[in-house]
Order: sequence, then C-alpha cells, then structure tokens
Amino acid sequence: MIEGKKMLVVSAHAADYVWRSGGTIAKYIKHGAQVHVVVLSFGVRGESNDLWKKEGATAESVKAERFAETKAAAGILGIENIEFWDLPDYPMSPALDEAARLRMVTKIREVAPDIIITHDKNGEDVLNPDHNAVSRFVFECSIQANSNGVRIENTKTTRQMRLFGFEPHQTELSRFVPDQLVDISEVYDQKVEAMKCFKAQKHLIEYYTQRAFLRGNHLRRISGNQTYKYGESFSSVFPVAGDELV
Amino acid sequence: MIEGKKMLVVSAHAADYVWRSGGTIAKYIKHGAQVHVVVLSFGVRGESNDLWKKEGATAESVKAERFAETKAAAGILGIENIEFWDLPDYPMSPALDEAARLRMVTKIREVAPDIIITHDKNGEDVLNPDHNAVSRFVFECSIQANSNGVRIENTKTTRQMRLFGFEPHQTELSRFVPDQLVDISEVYDQKVEAMKCFKAQKHLIEYYTQRAFLRGNHLRRISGNQTYKYGESFSSVFPVAGDELV
Amino acid sequence: MIEGKKMLVVSAHAADYVWRSGGTIAKYIKHGAQVHVVVLSFGVRGESNDLWKKEGATAESVKAERFAETKAAAGILGIENIEFWDLPDYPMSPALDEAARLRMVTKIREVAPDIIITHDKNGEDVLNPDHNAVSRFVFECSIQANSNGVRIENTKTTRQMRLFGFEPHQTELSRFVPDQLVDISEVYDQKVEAMKCFKAQKHLIEYYTQRAFLRGNHLRRISGNQTYKYGESFSSVFPVAGDELV
Amino acid sequence: MIEGKKMLVVSAHAADYVWRSGGTIAKYIKHGAQVHVVVLSFGVRGESNDLWKKEGATAESVKAERFAETKAAAGILGIENIEFWDLPDYPMSPALDEAARLRMVTKIREVAPDIIITHDKNGEDVLNPDHNAVSRFVFECSIQANSNGVRIENTKTTRQMRLFGFEPHQTELSRFVPDQLVDISEVYDQKVEAMKCFKAQKHLIEYYTQRAFLRGNHLRRISGNQTYKYGESFSSVFPVAGDELV
Amino acid sequence: MIEGKKMLVVSAHAADYVWRSGGTIAKYIKHGAQVHVVVLSFGVRGESNDLWKKEGATAESVKAERFAETKAAAGILGIENIEFWDLPDYPMSPALDEAARLRMVTKIREVAPDIIITHDKNGEDVLNPDHNAVSRFVFECSIQANSNGVRIENTKTTRQMRLFGFEPHQTELSRFVPDQLVDISEVYDQKVEAMKCFKAQKHLIEYYTQRAFLRGNHLRRISGNQTYKYGESFSSVFPVAGDELV
Amino acid sequence: MIEGKKMLVVSAHAADYVWRSGGTIAKYIKHGAQVHVVVLSFGVRGESNDLWKKEGATAESVKAERFAETKAAAGILGIENIEFWDLPDYPMSPALDEAARLRMVTKIREVAPDIIITHDKNGEDVLNPDHNAVSRFVFECSIQANSNGVRIENTKTTRQMRLFGFEPHQTELSRFVPDQLVDISEVYDQKVEAMKCFKAQKHLIEYYTQRAFLRGNHLRRISGNQTYKYGESFSSVFPVAGDELV
Repeated sequence: MIEGKKMLVVSAHAADYVWRSGGTIAKYIKHGAQVHVVVLSFGVRGESNDLWKKEGATAESVKAERFAETKAAAGILGIENIEFWDLPDYPMSPALDEAARLRMVTKIREVAPDIIITHDKNGEDVLNPDHNAVSRFVFECSIQANSNGVRIENTKTTRQMRLFGFEPHQTELSRFVPDQLVDISEVYDQKVEAMKCFKAQKHLIEYYTQRAFLRGNHLRRISGNQTYKYGESFSSVFPVAGDELV
Repeated sequence: MIEGKKMLVVSAHAADYVWRSGGTIAKYIKHGAQVHVVVLSFGVRGESNDLWKKEGATAESVKAERFAETKAAAGILGIENIEFWDLPDYPMSPALDEAARLRMVTKIREVAPDIIITHDKNGEDVLNPDHNAVSRFVFECSIQANSNGVRIENTKTTRQMRLFGFEPHQTELSRFVPDQLVDISEVYDQKVEAMKCFKAQKHLIEYYTQRAFLRGNHLRRISGNQTYKYGESFSSVFPVAGDELV
Repeated sequence: MIEGKKMLVVSAHAADYVWRSGGTIAKYIKHGAQVHVVVLSFGVRGESNDLWKKEGATAESVKAERFAETKAAAGILGIENIEFWDLPDYPMSPALDEAARLRMVTKIREVAPDIIITHDKNGEDVLNPDHNAVSRFVFECSIQANSNGVRIENTKTTRQMRLFGFEPHQTELSRFVPDQLVDISEVYDQKVEAMKCFKAQKHLIEYYTQRAFLRGNHLRRISGNQTYKYGESFSSVFPVAGDELV
Repeated sequence: MIEGKKMLVVSAHAADYVWRSGGTIAKYIKHGAQVHVVVLSFGVRGESNDLWKKEGATAESVKAERFAETKAAAGILGIENIEFWDLPDYPMSPALDEAARLRMVTKIREVAPDIIITHDKNGEDVLNPDHNAVSRFVFECSIQANSNGVRIENTKTTRQMRLFGFEPHQTELSRFVPDQLVDISEVYDQKVEAMKCFKAQKHLIEYYTQRAFLRGNHLRRISGNQTYKYGESFSSVFPVAGDELV
Repeated sequence: MIEGKKMLVVSAHAADYVWRSGGTIAKYIKHGAQVHVVVLSFGVRGESNDLWKKEGATAESVKAERFAETKAAAGILGIENIEFWDLPDYPMSPALDEAARLRMVTKIREVAPDIIITHDKNGEDVLNPDHNAVSRFVFECSIQANSNGVRIENTKTTRQMRLFGFEPHQTELSRFVPDQLVDISEVYDQKVEAMKCFKAQKHLIEYYTQRAFLRGNHLRRISGNQTYKYGESFSSVFPVAGDELV
Repeated sequence: MIEGKKMLVVSAHAADYVWRSGGTIAKYIKHGAQVHVVVLSFGVRGESNDLWKKEGATAESVKAERFAETKAAAGILGIENIEFWDLPDYPMSPALDEAARLRMVTKIREVAPDIIITHDKNGEDVLNPDHNAVSRFVFECSIQANSNGVRIENTKTTRQMRLFGFEPHQTELSRFVPDQLVDISEVYDQKVEAMKCFKAQKHLIEYYTQRAFLRGNHLRRISGNQTYKYGESFSSVFPVAGDELV
C-alpha cells in the first residue's frame, strides 16, 4: 500500500534522483505517498560537463542552470517537498562533516520516513566516489536517527525504516544487484518529461529511457505479469521482514 | 495476502521441511493457503543416526519410524497434501535422474504454485550435499515447468512462480544470507510440537527452537514491529518484482 | 588484429550466438577472420514459446522453423561455417555425454581456434541451466583439446586459446561482469537484420537492440573514444597475458 | 601434536600430492604420523605431456613411467601406505561413479583419518576440471563415511575429521585463499628430491621450489617466527573448533 | 596453551566485549593468560536505549550507569586490567583521530599482545558503523605498532600478533564467517552472570545465551568432541601459520 | 603499441614502484613510452626496518638513504621523470588531504596519461593500509581530472585513461586477482639490478625475483607463447573497451 507512506530521497547531485528513481517517486506521489527530496549538491563540478562548454560559464551560472533544471524536473514529477543543500561536489566527502551529519539526522527525524532511497550501499559506484560517500553518510545518519541516545532538541527518535539503493550508471561494474524491481509504466511519460529538463546531461536521457525498457522486460519475466512495460530497480540494505513471503 | 496462495515445498529428507519451514507452512495453511509437500527421501542413510543405534535396526525399520514421525509432524502442522517419493539418500544425486525430473515437472504443473520453497540455491550447504543436489534439481524443474515447449501430456505450462530457499543448518559456513524473514509467532507452538515428533534427531529440537528466537530478534530489529517473537528465514532466487517497494 | 584470427562460437540454442555475439561475429568476418559456429540444439523445448502457440505445432515443425530462422540469420552475419548438432534441450545436460565430449574436442582441434566464445563461466545464468551446462562442457573440452595426452586419431593438440563468455539475458542476476567491450557500430545494422529472423522470440529483438545501445554508452565512457555507438560485452576466463598493458 | 595423527591424502593424478603437500606429508611421517595416500589416476592423458613426446609412446608406456616416478617420489617422502586406483583422467568425472564412491567411503573408514587433504573446495581450479571433480567426490564421501546410516559391511562410521585443500597451480585465478601455512623447512630437501622424480613435468620443479620460498616469506611475516624458511599452504573446509584461539 | 598468553581486547562500547567474547576472556584468565581490555566508549548515545527512558536521564547519569554495569561485568569475568577511554559514540569515527591513534599504538606496545580481539574486519557490521570504524582503527594501529620505523618514546616495536574479530549481532547480514570456534562451557555461567549486569540492553541477554548454545552445536559437529556445550565464534584476519595443520 | 604512450605511476613508498612494476616501467621506457613516477613518501616509518637498526639512525638519515636508493633504482630503470612528495607514512591517509588532492589532480592533467598504475583497488592490501589509502586517493583524483567542471587554472581536462593496480605483497590474502600479465623478460636484468638498490628491504629482492619467475610460468601457460620467461601482473579497474577481443 503506497498511500500514506512517507519517503525520503537523498540525491548526491541535482539529477541523480530523476534518472534513478523518478518513476518510483512519481508513482508514490500519484498514489498518495508523501515524498521528500534532499539534493545535496548541484553537481556543478562533476555532472555539468555540457554547461561548462558554454562561453563565459562560471560556477554561478552553471549552478543557476542546474537549479532551474532540477526544479522543473521536480515539478513534473509532482514533488512538492524538495530542498537543496548546495554542498560542493567532486569531491563531496569533505563536506559531509559533523554539521552535515547533524542536519541530516535532524531531517530524517523530521520526515520520519517509512522508506529512504539513496545511493547504493551493497556495491560500489565505480565511476562516482561522491555516490559512495553519500551512501555511507545517509546510512550512518539513519542509524543515529533511530537511536534513542542521540539527543537532538525538538526531534523524536525514528523507528527503523526501509533503506533502498539507486541503480548506478555502470550497473555491473559497480557490482549492483537489483533486489527490488518496481513497475513505473503508468508514470513513464512523466519520467521521460522530467529527464528532458537536464540539458547538461542530454546523452543520459536516451540511456535511462532504454534502461527502463530493459527493467520492464525483467519485471515481466520475473513476476509473470505481462502488463508491466517499464521499470526501475533498487537494492535493499536489509532483508524483507514481515508477515509473509513476498 | 496469504489466502488462496498455492505453495509447493520440496524437502530432501523427512524432517527438513519441518525444521526449516514448519512455522511458515502452518501459518500459510491457517490463513487459507493451499500447501503441498513433497518429501523426496526418508533420510534413512543420512539423517537417522539415533534410530540406527537401536538394536536390530534395519533400513526397513528405520524407514518405518521416519515415515511415522514425519506423518505425525505433518498432521500437527495441518498439512493435508504430502507425498513421499522414497528416493535413496546419501547420496541422493544419482536418484535425481530423468524419470525423477519428469515426475517433478509434472508435479509442479499439477500444483501450479505461486511459491516454491526448497533447499537454498544462493549459498551451498557445507555439510549436506543432498541439499545442494535437490536445490538444483527443483530449480531446473521449475524452469522446465514454465517453458511452453516442454510438452507433457495432461499438463499445463506454469507461470513464473516465486522461489525461496531454506536456511541450512550451518548458516554462515553455507554462505546463506536471509532475504526474507517471516514472523511465525502465532504458530510457534505448533512448530515446536511438530519438531518433537522427530526422535531420531532430538538434538535438533532445541537448536531450531533457539534459532526461531534469534530470527524473532532480527524481525523486530529490522521491521520495527515489536510484536514479532519468533521467525524463520529464507533466501530468494529472484528479486521482488511488483508495484511498489516492499 | 582481427585478420586471420580463427574463432569458434558454441551456442546452446539456435539464437544465442546471434543475440549475444552477432555483432562481434559479423565484424570479425568482415575484417578477415575465420568464424566457425556450432549450434548445439534448436531450442525446441526451451526457446520456442511463440512457435508452439501455432495450431498443430509439433517438435518437427518447430525445429524446421528454428532451423530456417537461424540459417537466415547466419547468412546475414556472413557466417559460412555453421553446424547443427541437434541435441535435445531443456535439459541439455544429459546429452553432453562422453560421445558429445569426444565430438567437441575433435571439433576444437579441427578449428584450432585463437578464440572460443560460448556461455559465461564466471557467473551463473540464473534462468537457463542449459547455458551453464554448455559453459562447463565447452571449457572442459578446451582443456582436453589442449592436452597432448588426449589422443584422438587424425587430430592435433591445440595451443591454449582465449576463452570468452556471452553476456546472459539477466546480466546482474547472473552475476555477469563484463571484462571486454567490443564496438560493433559498423555492423550494427547487420546484427539487427539477423535478429529479425527469430520470429519465435520477437520480444528479444528490441531488448538486444537497446542493450547494444547501453553497451555503446559504456564503451565511450571507458575508452574515451566518442565514435563508438553500439557494443557487445563478454567475460574472460583468463587474464590478458602478453607484451603490454591493454 | 603430529605424533599419532592419521592422515589421508587423495591425489587426482600421480604427482599432485608431491607438488602440493610433499613437505607436509614428509614432516608428518617424520614426526610419527600415519600417512595414507590414494592416487586416483596416473595422469596419463592430462599430465604427461613430455612423456608423450617420446617416440613410440603408448598409454601403457606412459603409465609405466608415471608409476615408476611416483613410487620413487613416495619412497623419498617416506610414504609406506600408497595405493593406485588407476582411473582414467581428462576427464576423470565419469569414473567417479557409485562403485568409486563405495570404495572411497570404505577407504576413509579403514583409515579413520584425523585429517584428509585433497584438492581445494573453496575455490575452483581454473585449469584442471579433474581437480574440482575429485574435490567434490572426496568431500561427499567423507560426509557419508561419517554418517551412521550409511551401512557398509566390516566398516565403522568415522568421526568428523579435519578437511584441507591443496593450493592449485594458478592460485589467484582459482580463487584459492590460504587458511593454513605449514613450515616445511626441515624436510624441504626431501621434497625437492621427491619432485625431481617427475621427468614428465620438469618445468614444475623450479616452480614449486620457488613457491615454497614465497610461502616461507609469508610464514615468517604472519607468525613472526624468523626460523621458517619454506612452506606449503592449504585451505580449510571447516573453521577451527576447539579449546582456544590458534 | 593459554597459560602465559597476553591478550588485548578492544571494545567499541561498554558491553561489546562481554556479549561477544566474555566467555573466551574468562577462560583465558582462568587458565593463566593476561587479559587487557580497552573500552573506547560507554555507548551513551548508541547502546543505552533503555537507560534513556528513565525520567530525568542525562548523558552523565547514563554514563555513570554504564560504567557501573561494565565494571561489574568485568569483575565477574575476572578482568583486572581494564581501561575506559570515554570517547563519544554514534558516531565514533571523528574521535579516532591522530591522538587516539598514538594512544592505541602505545597501548599495543605496552601490552605486547600475542592476541588482539576487536570488531570484525572481514565482513561489515550492517547495523553499527562504530564497530567498523573501530575494526579498521585497531587493525591499522597494530600495523604501526609492529613497524620498527614508527618511533614512540619508551615503547618497543611489537612482533606480529594474531588478530581476531568479534561475531557481530546480525551475523549473516554482516557477512561474518566464523573461522574459529572456542568452547566456553566451563565458564558459561560466568558469562551469563556478567551479561546480566547490562540492564540497558536486557533483551540481549537471552539472545547471546542462545547464540552460545547454537555455537556449541557447531563446535560439536565440526570437532566431533561431544563435551562441548557452549561456544563463541571469531573471524581471523590472517591464516594460521605454524608447524602443523590445526 | 607502447611507443608514444604516456604512463603515470604513483607509488606510496620509495620502493613500491620498483618491486611491483619496475619491469613494466623499464620495458615501456625502452620502447618509447613517456613514464612519470610520483613517489608519495620515502617509507621512513613503514618500510625502512633495517635502516632503523643502524646505530644513531634518525628520520633524516633514514630518509636520505631511502632517497639515494630510490634515485639509483630509478636511474637503472631509465626513469627520467620522477618526483618525491615526501609525505609522512604509517599512516599516510591524514596527509592525503585537499591540498594533496589538488596537487595530484593537477599532476594528472599535466601528464595527461594514457595509463595510470598505482596500488590495487579491486582487493584490499591486508598488511599495508597506506596502499589502500593511496589507491582510493589516486582513483578519485583521476575521476576529478577527467571532469570538465573541476576547474583548475592552467590545466586541461583529461580523457578517461586506463587504470591498473599493482600486485600487493600478500597476493591472495589481499584478494588480488591478476587481470593483465606483462612479459618483462627483456628487461628482467634491469629490474633485478634496480631492486638491489634497496638495502633496507633486502629480504624482498629474492622474493620479487621468484615472483617474476612464477608470473612467467603463468604467462606461458595462458598465452601459449613459450618465449616468455618473467612477468609482472596487474589488476584493471575497468574492462577492456575497444575494437576487438584481446
């Protein structure tokens, strides 16, 4: 049951959450979930190659374009709760310090999510060290948010939530293994529209369009449900634990 | 939703299905699932050490006792559909021949299960080669059952079902990693009663009782649901593929 | 240098070599390599679902169609040396007996290949046990072909060749990791035409078209060569061993 | 304490036990252990390349030379209990049938070993499928030997013994990880002499000499004991289980 | 031989060393080893959930209770040499800085241990990032302590010691594989008494009691020694390197 | 084709590049490649045990000797471009800060290498944490050097280069798997002469001599080229991506 679920998505750069989970986000919003997105950086240094090719580009101009793009994409996906921390990237790890940690633990407790989605923790992104740094950072903050002894004023300890990892760009080289495949057919057009906002990375639009198609093939094959056409895949940090086999 | 599900459990020896999935079976039956159990052998050679210590024990006398024990256990768990193929064990692999294969493919098509549970395929049972042989055998038969081109009279091609593996006795040495934890608290007493039927392996009763307790601890920790007390764990052959993250 | 190389491709079923290595084969032939293909079975039982849906289909009619399809595809790829062993499939392993082994060792010695391509050995095809059986079979036959003490009349011991594995259908679930990516842009259209011959598996044509596109993206990213558009990927059984780093 | 230990070594081919465990065997014998060696084949097809180059070589002449070589080596190592099963090799797996299994279970029960050493089971010999087949065969036979229900006249059920794997020729490619390093300095000269008996594989003598040196380096580094000069390494099937940490 | 051995145990939080190695510590002390314990933090933030539920709890009051509990437990186990570094936890990694490193290298050189036990390094604790940080920290400090060029006044370079890892709470999810199982039957009652001191984590007492029982089952199964009843398990950083197979 | 290639080698300590890649470096230089070496530290604390044994040794005297040794070795290998960053070692990670990162990214862009060789990233050096820190550091700097948005005055964004890892000292314990074996026979004598310069680590000279011999054996076995006598091995971060299978 998606309705009423609270989901927190943490994206290292401005577009990661769109390529990797835009369909799942749109579907959750459409069916009544509350989705919060934290964009840690605009990817000015690491993921804006084409914008830098414009004559006279500066860090500020690139950032402004990235901001506009990601805001537009978020709107198309139906995201109302999105915040931009504007951390530096490439490398991001020095910015994931104690202050950032306190901020993230606080954020997690504010949202009190049933589900957190961020960069994959089971494998290792072979081309993007920022993604690995964010994966560890969010995971560790979730552990602290859940711990009663971590006292932060005006916050309430969270309950253990479900944690999922994005599929990285180079799936197999990053040793990513999909644990969960989600059908996104009904919001596929929204995702494609949202991806089109990212002019700095336009070579990725066709890439993620075709990946959604391949994941749709896998969804049909594994579930036996022939109505699935497009999908996204995620890894799980923890096993499924509940009342029955799923 | 358990109600109406069809489950096929394939057990290498007479007691495997009880130690490893007795709680899940009882719960599924209680909530309206249809459960079929195939016991491939009585474990006369490999899993009846104590019975052989009786004076005058013969293969026939041991088999008779094992049969009585496992029938009694099945009754306690509420299993109505159980069959005994009476294959030799230790080693079982020579008996898993083309005739056995045809029989198993046919059986799968008869049951048309939503779920198959058998010995784990992701790791490798480090102390019981029969379990590994059965794991591969059932998996391969499921692939054939699902294939339209495998023509067997009076059978109908099955749809891709969910496949799960039992937790083996030596969990970590067998590189078993639990993908799914199932709460069995409401049928825990039934499972304990069923286990008590196996006089040939009585050292295992306390062992699996305590494991259920440990898995209950993990269930609470991972789900945040504090009502879970006892559990069983399984591995999945395929990722979860469906409409949402679970 | 492709020119003058001898390549042996061993395909479990009628279409495997086309989906998985059709581009590489066409490229090697175009540039002067000698390519030999052995098709072990027609995939009548395991890979002809749509053909069986035709009214009145029989094993013979399905086989005839598969034969016609794969011959046409081979022609489009430029393959002159192809042979069909017509083994049963689903399961194929019982047919990979000592007679088949002798035949394959002999074949390897006849071709004396620089390169053998067959199903992947590093991972495990999670949906197709025949592929795993063929992988082991061909690998073991290659070891014997290379051994001076394996005496077969009218054959000459081969020198250690390079061995590569196909990318399976469910890449990550099969734990396949690409070791070698080959640009197939110049023969891409040929591969697409060849794939179109397989009417029994037409859902796969778009699938492998899109995979070639994704692999093209990876080729550009890893090599820095922006002219690469489409690719195929393979695993290596052995490390690269030679005069320099490649 | 080596004295009084019973050790069973199972070697796929005529020389495997010498290259891989000759030092450990000699040391155990010297210090009062009882060592039994079973040589399953003479390696006529797979490991006698140089002998086949002699003019007029036949399977019989090669076997006779291999037999003479391995007898001589065994003598140098001090082995009194050695037997030759003369199975075919390359491939050996078809010969590891039910009769061979019964014979091996019986042999294990006769020796009642504290320690079994055979080919590695944790990794996979990447160049020698016979080694993998023997590894599984011996392991499975040990399980049966230990099972009270496997009734063989005039034999007595064994107690769980320690099981160790040989280091294969291509260590890392075979994913072998050494669990136990044994100092063989005091019997090193014996091992070198024993290796020199194998004229059919003389390129291996220097190879295994140098490997003993490298393992000696590792022994010193890990133990801190600077008197160790030469070593052999093994993998363990089971953890160490006893009264203290070792 | 335990007598005369020097052991250093490094525990991230106040109770870790008790749950995970209390039996082994008590046994080593009983048989004449010298055991030193360093407790890096009191676990005020991460492992004192129940204490924080008391009305008016403060960091100071929680710390005082944790200190009292762990002192009492140490006394029951017979530990005379224990020190408390009182580092912050959740997260601990920022406190493992250069000053802490110098202090730990100095401590290792003071104790000159034959054995160091700390958190597991082969796997990764999936629920407790502090444990992973401590594991790396202690390991790296041991390397420095052993290096002659790391000059610290009034210290003497240590010899390579044996390093072992604790079994974590979620064994399989943390990919922990036991390399060494130690029988703790004779001190089991002491361990149970010591565990009872931790009122803040009382749900863990039954958990670790039952795990000791399961490990006892594994000890018997693997060693064949039927007198073993309760056990603890550890992972090894290095292989066993010595005079014989163990 | 080696001629014209640009190679950057980054060595954690003064001698690492010689033991692990001295032959490959010499061969590349001999055949017309441009090789640049960065030595991050002199290994004063971690890899100069014997020098510290000299009476009156100080950090300065040790450093001076290490500098002289490594300069001499570089000369023998034909290296003209070598620089010494003189960072502290044991531990080195605190010195790999933002300033070092900027310096390394700049260096990579200056050299614009086709190939970078540094410490292995696929496994983990089990005895030398500095090597792991350097591996990650160089890898992350290469990612930044290749990113158009990382703006550093007077530098030009690099194209994706090939990245290779050194074989560590304890190959298997460090889970190193060789992906590429390079024949160094023609420069083997040069490498041996270069190694002899390191008087502080003379026990390693024979070690790396013998390893070159073992790798020569593997080169012949895998390539079938019998002229190869000595080799070095490397791991690859990325797959081979190009116009053909290699």
